[in-house]
Amino acid sequence: MNVRHDRIARVQARMREVGLVAIVVMNHDDFRYLFGEDRTQPRAIIPFDGPPEIVAFTGEEPELLAALPDGRVRVFGSVGGQIHDIVDRLRDLVAQPGAPTSAGRPKVGMQQWFDTPAFLVDLFRRVNPEVELVSSDPVMDSLRMVKDADELALLGEAQRIAGVGMDRARALLRPGVAAHEVATEALYAMLRAGAERTSTPVYVTFGIETCMLHGRVSPQPLAPGDLAIVDLTPQVEGYCANLARTFVLGEPAPRHTELLTTYAEIVEAVRPALRPGATVAELDAVAHQVCARHGLEQHHVYGIGHGIGLRFEEVPASTIIPPHRNVRLREGMTMTIGHPVLAIPGFGGARFEDVYRVAQDGGQPLAPYPVAPVIEG
Amino acid sequence: MNVRHDRIARVQARMREVGLVAIVVMNHDDFRYLFGEDRTQPRAIIPFDGPPEIVAFTGEEPELLAALPDGRVRVFGSVGGQIHDIVDRLRDLVAQPGAPTSAGRPKVGMQQWFDTPAFLVDLFRRVNPEVELVSSDPVMDSLRMVKDADELALLGEAQRIAGVGMDRARALLRPGVAAHEVATEALYAMLRAGAERTSTPVYVTFGIETCMLHGRVSPQPLAPGDLAIVDLTPQVEGYCANLARTFVLGEPAPRHTELLTTYAEIVEAVRPALRPGATVAELDAVAHQVCARHGLEQHHVYGIGHGIGLRFEEVPASTIIPPHRNVRLREGMTMTIGHPVLAIPGFGGARFEDVYRVAQDGGQPLAPYPVAPVIEG
Repeated sequence: MNVRHDRIARVQARMREVGLVAIVVMNHDDFRYLFGEDRTQPRAIIPFDGPPEIVAFTGEEPELLAALPDGRVRVFGSVGGQIHDIVDRLRDLVAQPGAPTSAGRPKVGMQQWFDTPAFLVDLFRRVNPEVELVSSDPVMDSLRMVKDADELALLGEAQRIAGVGMDRARALLRPGVAAHEVATEALYAMLRAGAERTSTPVYVTFGIETCMLHGRVSPQPLAPGDLAIVDLTPQVEGYCANLARTFVLGEPAPRHTELLTTYAEIVEAVRPALRPGATVAELDAVAHQVCARHGLEQHHVYGIGHGIGLRFEEVPASTIIPPHRNVRLREGMTMTIGHPVLAIPGFGGARFEDVYRVAQDGGQPLAPYPVAPVIEG
Repeated sequence: MNVRHDRIARVQARMREVGLVAIVVMNHDDFRYLFGEDRTQPRAIIPFDGPPEIVAFTGEEPELLAALPDGRVRVFGSVGGQIHDIVDRLRDLVAQPGAPTSAGRPKVGMQQWFDTPAFLVDLFRRVNPEVELVSSDPVMDSLRMVKDADELALLGEAQRIAGVGMDRARALLRPGVAAHEVATEALYAMLRAGAERTSTPVYVTFGIETCMLHGRVSPQPLAPGDLAIVDLTPQVEGYCANLARTFVLGEPAPRHTELLTTYAEIVEAVRPALRPGATVAELDAVAHQVCARHGLEQHHVYGIGHGIGLRFEEVPASTIIPPHRNVRLREGMTMTIGHPVLAIPGFGGARFEDVYRVAQDGGQPLAPYPVAPVIEG
């Protein structure tokens, strides 16, 4: 375990500013950011002051203590014991001299995202009536938004591995191939190339299913003339990649060409606009203009990109949290371009998605990958 | 899409009994149970009466309507539009003549499990102040608990595929092998054998890391004399498997043998007790006696098994929801035996986990797999 004391100190300084007595970490991304390693069930308490405390199973205590000489391990043998221990610890922290409050109330932060289930939050509120549970995202996101050089290297490596998977997928796109086979082989290639896992399943959609907003593994085999979308999300040391490509098997119909050309033009138009100070709303306006020029504006979907890092979608996650549409980008943030499908209902859809670093002269691709949609049928 | 109208009718009858005006489905398992198919973002409204309504992206409408002649599709083009549409629909349902209430209040059910994030529930409560959000689990779990013959066949097939993965993993356990390689090859074998995906990553722990409660992919290679745990969770049509085995590489030390023998005896003692009417608390008492006989009772962890079906852990999920320890099992439920690790801190841990059907004459394994821990080193 490579505890990031520098980051923990910055989190604690921010906690004291905003009046958080503790942050309870229950998610992979914040845990990895602070402890330099993941756990299957990541659980930790970051107090407003003093060493961080990892919450772990009793059988793991000797190894954790050896790996964490300057931290603390709070062990449990059952879920009931774990809950009581955390309640007691938070009560102690609230009572500690100098404990921060906000509007006169002791507050505890917790990430509010897909990994934080409502039933655990409801339980937390019930057993900790004397503290107010608030989102820790404003504290953590503000620190995690801009990536340092090490983080950019890992994000680039993950994106490179996505390219390995895409090469493998593309080579398999032949008439009659099953989407499940393409997905399996692409995943295997990425894992062998060093991916730890993927953020989502590998999505491979064929034909009319390219219209789907989120993708899946199509049940029907690939047919000549079909569109195909492959969407890959490998992770390296928790850092996420996102590479999506659309292919057409055989001679493209004019409408295929129109759709694919439009999307390629969207990416080319948005990339130079991915600069510090821009917002997703502004990038969407650029994309909309391109769609309008091709007479496809009625099919245009907002949310051309999203933040990406230790979480597959992070600030600005504009298609999940509408106010994120107006977050001003900062230099060194990492963003995708190409998130939403451009789908003509009943016909098919397209997208080309890559990860870029936000820079003064526009988005810089972390690992360029060709856009070459036509596959000889 | 193979809409299960019989199941939907049973859900609606139960909703009217308990006073739910609607269930909002946002999870894979209930969606699959009711619609016979999964979606990457499963979203549906089950009203207290009338056809079910799938919530989907506008580009997907033509295909969904074709697949769902007797259902309804509510389309959205943005997350804001989706939220407003659902708020309006729930308001209409509440105003509908004959709309059920409970304690004079209109109530809407939603699954309360790991897939239901707190931030969406908080948003739901804010935008729907006139309805009370309650758990839909009592309705859904009561119907889903006992598996029919088709479900048992799929669960058995998933468990058979886990065996394919375990064969592959076992064959690779040689000195110096990386856990990541074992995990990658086992996953690949399961996907090629027909698994759709896995419920969790493939966990492969070596040496001292076999003490971990949840497993992971160990960073260090396998050394002679090491214990190794492989934990596999493939899915077939959404139905989950769970197969865990512990191996020892080379001549086992007496303490290894003691640990492995104890766990095998736990499974053998609990299996005949997995009968209708039993509770996990009772099964745990059986396991505890075995541990005590071997002088390992101080390391015994409660929660010997959990329900399994379309969700990897379902009722009784005794290590997550303490009251589930006292749920009475019913004939035809499917349960694992072998969930918790028996870990001697600083030494190592063991478990053998399989899936069983609860029956009058004790647990019947869905796909028997050998317990043969010793691998010639």
